[in-house]
Amino acid sequence: MASILEMLMNEIQPPLQTSGGKVTVVGVGQVGMACAFSLLTQHICSELALVDVMADKLRGEMMDLQHGLTFLRNVKIEASTDFSVTAGSRVCIVTAGARQREGESRLSLVQRNVDIFKGIIPNLVKHSPNCILLVVSNPVDVLTYVAWKLSGLPKHRVIGSGTNLDSARFRFHLSQKLNVAPSSTHGWIIGEHGDSSVPVWSGVNIAGVRLRDLNPLVGTPEDPDKYNEMHKEVVNSAYEVIKLKGYTSWAIGTSCAILTRSILTNQRSVYAVSTCVQNYHGVDKDVFLSLPVVLGENGVTHVIKQTLTDAEKNQLQNSANTLWDVQAGIQF
Amino acid sequence: MASILEMLMNEIQPPLQTSGGKVTVVGVGQVGMACAFSLLTQHICSELALVDVMADKLRGEMMDLQHGLTFLRNVKIEASTDFSVTAGSRVCIVTAGARQREGESRLSLVQRNVDIFKGIIPNLVKHSPNCILLVVSNPVDVLTYVAWKLSGLPKHRVIGSGTNLDSARFRFHLSQKLNVAPSSTHGWIIGEHGDSSVPVWSGVNIAGVRLRDLNPLVGTPEDPDKYNEMHKEVVNSAYEVIKLKGYTSWAIGTSCAILTRSILTNQRSVYAVSTCVQNYHGVDKDVFLSLPVVLGENGVTHVIKQTLTDAEKNQLQNSANTLWDVQAGIQF
Amino acid sequence: MASILEMLMNEIQPPLQTSGGKVTVVGVGQVGMACAFSLLTQHICSELALVDVMADKLRGEMMDLQHGLTFLRNVKIEASTDFSVTAGSRVCIVTAGARQREGESRLSLVQRNVDIFKGIIPNLVKHSPNCILLVVSNPVDVLTYVAWKLSGLPKHRVIGSGTNLDSARFRFHLSQKLNVAPSSTHGWIIGEHGDSSVPVWSGVNIAGVRLRDLNPLVGTPEDPDKYNEMHKEVVNSAYEVIKLKGYTSWAIGTSCAILTRSILTNQRSVYAVSTCVQNYHGVDKDVFLSLPVVLGENGVTHVIKQTLTDAEKNQLQNSANTLWDVQAGIQF
Amino acid sequence: MASILEMLMNEIQPPLQTSGGKVTVVGVGQVGMACAFSLLTQHICSELALVDVMADKLRGEMMDLQHGLTFLRNVKIEASTDFSVTAGSRVCIVTAGARQREGESRLSLVQRNVDIFKGIIPNLVKHSPNCILLVVSNPVDVLTYVAWKLSGLPKHRVIGSGTNLDSARFRFHLSQKLNVAPSSTHGWIIGEHGDSSVPVWSGVNIAGVRLRDLNPLVGTPEDPDKYNEMHKEVVNSAYEVIKLKGYTSWAIGTSCAILTRSILTNQRSVYAVSTCVQNYHGVDKDVFLSLPVVLGENGVTHVIKQTLTDAEKNQLQNSANTLWDVQAGIQF
Repeated sequence: MASILEMLMNEIQPPLQTSGGKVTVVGVGQVGMACAFSLLTQHICSELALVDVMADKLRGEMMDLQHGLTFLRNVKIEASTDFSVTAGSRVCIVTAGARQREGESRLSLVQRNVDIFKGIIPNLVKHSPNCILLVVSNPVDVLTYVAWKLSGLPKHRVIGSGTNLDSARFRFHLSQKLNVAPSSTHGWIIGEHGDSSVPVWSGVNIAGVRLRDLNPLVGTPEDPDKYNEMHKEVVNSAYEVIKLKGYTSWAIGTSCAILTRSILTNQRSVYAVSTCVQNYHGVDKDVFLSLPVVLGENGVTHVIKQTLTDAEKNQLQNSANTLWDVQAGIQF
Repeated sequence: MASILEMLMNEIQPPLQTSGGKVTVVGVGQVGMACAFSLLTQHICSELALVDVMADKLRGEMMDLQHGLTFLRNVKIEASTDFSVTAGSRVCIVTAGARQREGESRLSLVQRNVDIFKGIIPNLVKHSPNCILLVVSNPVDVLTYVAWKLSGLPKHRVIGSGTNLDSARFRFHLSQKLNVAPSSTHGWIIGEHGDSSVPVWSGVNIAGVRLRDLNPLVGTPEDPDKYNEMHKEVVNSAYEVIKLKGYTSWAIGTSCAILTRSILTNQRSVYAVSTCVQNYHGVDKDVFLSLPVVLGENGVTHVIKQTLTDAEKNQLQNSANTLWDVQAGIQF
Repeated sequence: MASILEMLMNEIQPPLQTSGGKVTVVGVGQVGMACAFSLLTQHICSELALVDVMADKLRGEMMDLQHGLTFLRNVKIEASTDFSVTAGSRVCIVTAGARQREGESRLSLVQRNVDIFKGIIPNLVKHSPNCILLVVSNPVDVLTYVAWKLSGLPKHRVIGSGTNLDSARFRFHLSQKLNVAPSSTHGWIIGEHGDSSVPVWSGVNIAGVRLRDLNPLVGTPEDPDKYNEMHKEVVNSAYEVIKLKGYTSWAIGTSCAILTRSILTNQRSVYAVSTCVQNYHGVDKDVFLSLPVVLGENGVTHVIKQTLTDAEKNQLQNSANTLWDVQAGIQF
Repeated sequence: MASILEMLMNEIQPPLQTSGGKVTVVGVGQVGMACAFSLLTQHICSELALVDVMADKLRGEMMDLQHGLTFLRNVKIEASTDFSVTAGSRVCIVTAGARQREGESRLSLVQRNVDIFKGIIPNLVKHSPNCILLVVSNPVDVLTYVAWKLSGLPKHRVIGSGTNLDSARFRFHLSQKLNVAPSSTHGWIIGEHGDSSVPVWSGVNIAGVRLRDLNPLVGTPEDPDKYNEMHKEVVNSAYEVIKLKGYTSWAIGTSCAILTRSILTNQRSVYAVSTCVQNYHGVDKDVFLSLPVVLGENGVTHVIKQTLTDAEKNQLQNSANTLWDVQAGIQF
């Protein structure tokens, strides 16, 4: 007797397995899964590969995503501990990495993550030689440099999620203060993701009105409106969210989804991501920090040259020097 | 000196705080947050209130969602342990509840959740007397009945997420077998969410072609194609995902998001949700089980009367009797 | 014998006809229909009412939209020559109006449109007393004033589509010049929609970098990069599109859809729309011109006070005086 | 002096011009533009090429679409009378064609369109040898055959929009009768697009409940509920809309957009499109008619074999014979 499948359908041509919209997420922890779920619910990719070393967790997350496809659109979701599942990805998001142990030095943490990346990055590039690498693992700036080194890819193909998230947090706080949508409040945080990030006050504007033109002290300790506290809130946000719920996930997930969309559809939108900053703003070291870039199909095509104050440049240079020292200690 | 705000803007009219698209999620565990994140990334609500007893976790989740708004659309997100934050919600999704302890009887678990619901449901109704209650906590069918009892709302305003998720899983498995998009594979699982759910094989079809017309044995143990194993897989799915990753979240999140969208926009789509089934398919008890219903602005307006076999009716009646016995033991 | 409907479904509760997301479009010409189709394909409204005096055309457009609903989401679409069909709308988009006859004076055109508006505006307000009026008909600034006069609504509830479209065109041209996404190129055109619109060069920026800081001559005739020609292109665009295809439709349709979404979901985004500009930038007349405003559920809540040059202020004041003279000749 | 562009940005890598999501629309009449606008507002393509012989109209439509991009997403939109602009398209939608002259025979109309297609199809295939051709011009079934012949492409790469629209109209009418969302009312119209289309009553269902199981007469003249009139309404719809507004556009635009999305993202959804029906349902001629197919990246991979009555098969065979006769008279 014929099978139901044979009775139901006649095959004209074998289905293709690929459609040119494949994204890989490495690491299915809270961050990786928030990225994956953002990509699905916002219909950004048409194929999704998940990779992790924890086979059980990996399979559970894959199944849980698959069970929601009926309510979304049909996306081919695969998961494996073997990187061959990632073949043909256009964007690979790397969220895997070790967390800081109590009392551990930053360099020690970095080295442990370098060792983890040695098992990830070359495998991604092997199976997707034309992909864009989007590094999310922390410390993101150093690890983006590491990923670039390990990948052998040109620099414009390796970015870190960087201060795109810090900028989003900044814009949210600004939007609360002004009671205006975050998408209509413009401001950029650049440099090192985290404590030593740099808010570029000269660019903060609503409808093209620079706050600094209204009040030249804005963002300084002398400002009576205390807008400078907003940057402190941004820096503290990460710590506070981690203290309160144990980790951050949703905001970084939406951040990575938006970056991936700009790449997959060649949108050429401007986002602050970690990129090689040598020769910008007086930085002479070969390090990665966040600057606004134009993001398209082939990654970073242009870096926006913001007009920075000397103090802002100094902060960038200091971050660069710190990172350079860390990088010097890495054993590849 | 004028504040930046005064220099930047002139107020014409105080902003309204409400926009008629408010949703509350009670419980910010993995399920509640997957619901909340689905609602945001799919632009389903324009206001979101989160409630939980764990103030820290609650605040952390609220902040993490807020930090992503720059990349989504502007939604007013609030969170509080106090139910006044939920005022004016059109849909309230209840995901809070206790988990089964080892060795605990089902009735004991239910009673513990009834006690939890006593602190939730009347408070929701007090602040949003015209809302639709969408119960997700397990065992979902009994707890939907409990929510209805505690709410004082008419029955059409209280639903349980029920077998909408089981149906989605079923359609995914079917789609894998046939290599057709889940949204083009049609099948309904009704009855009790979980082990004793009922797959309605007479309705399973692709482009209106009933599989049962191709093979009358489909879904039975005698079927050589073994499609009946698909229902077993659906039942096992929940257990397997929980075993593998510890809980289920993404699929139930998308399920609740889609139900909420149908309500908020009065879409009148048909979904299988837990509703009062007395007088359907020979059930004579006042219990809640899933049947396909038409879901709109005011909740369940119509129940679809599927043509069931005697075996299917018996399964429903057995589930109804079991639930009835459980309900009889509840202390309100 | 029971009807199919009775056999298929059991009614629990009569369906509601409203869901709080109703929008009316008056005028089903190319502009009105581009608005309507934008609203549907972008899922912005959950109910849509169309009104026109041409009953046949009206019914044809309604049917054509309805036939596409299977591929979109379920929206209740109604059309009638009778304004009672618009009852309960939250936003009413007015695209109806006469076109300029050859040799006709501007005032004559305005008066003819005032007479048309007399048959529209009071009827809209009668059936939707809390709506926001969005005027699109040209000359849009005068007609927004007229709509406000005829409506009896407070000023913040009556806006004109104004230079939101001019700004979009400007940002597109800028994006082409810089090869950056339009959504990442920021610039505002304010004032009178059309020939005498004012580009605010001080606010033009990419990632917060003001072009004027790079080149103080930008936007002036002396600028070697000739960016000032971009504004000319914007002004010519309308004429050129009309010459080439006979009318403009798609861009104004997307413009109105985005404004409507900001209102319906209380997004508080900033757009340049026609609003009462008395007491801004030295304008002392009671006229409507476009300025950046914060747009929410209750319309214009705030006007952004941009920092303008004297030349820019003069242009605004001149436009205001011209409009004032036109308004003085209107017979209400 | 450096240009603004040089001062603003540093180029890391020249931008790519392609992103793998290119769609061409041939013909910028009402149908072609409704397709194009649907694709843009629903974010289906990332590049769009428009082709027509009317250079002015073409340029006007391109500009009008481009001016709306600020409110949508950045899509590269190009237009030319030269087919080289279409290079690298994955889907080419052909809406160009002559309209029937008064008193003109069907064959004469077909021959005129064949002559037009001779100038279109080979040019499309030349520049996009791996594209999927989606024919919309009428009479769509014959012209899909013609396009296939002229293209030299394998049959699964050439489809006609066919009865996907008829099915949508049918589901809308059904949804109105039952007050259920069109997306939850299932029914298929197959065969020839237009007058002799075939409603497959055996497949009409809500939540898997076949109306024919409730009333075996459904769809027949004997049915007291007169559901058979719904098919007449569908057939009349096209005529009525054309009579009322002069043409149909919105529904066919959304229909083509949904088909294109299924292809570009390899969704494998099932739609009724015009495909070669030889050897299905007793048809022995090499003609194109609509049947439900699975649509993916490489076009039609499977045809669904519905269970038809003898009467339904006869209708299909009659249509096939008629088309065969028309095809016999075509001069290639």
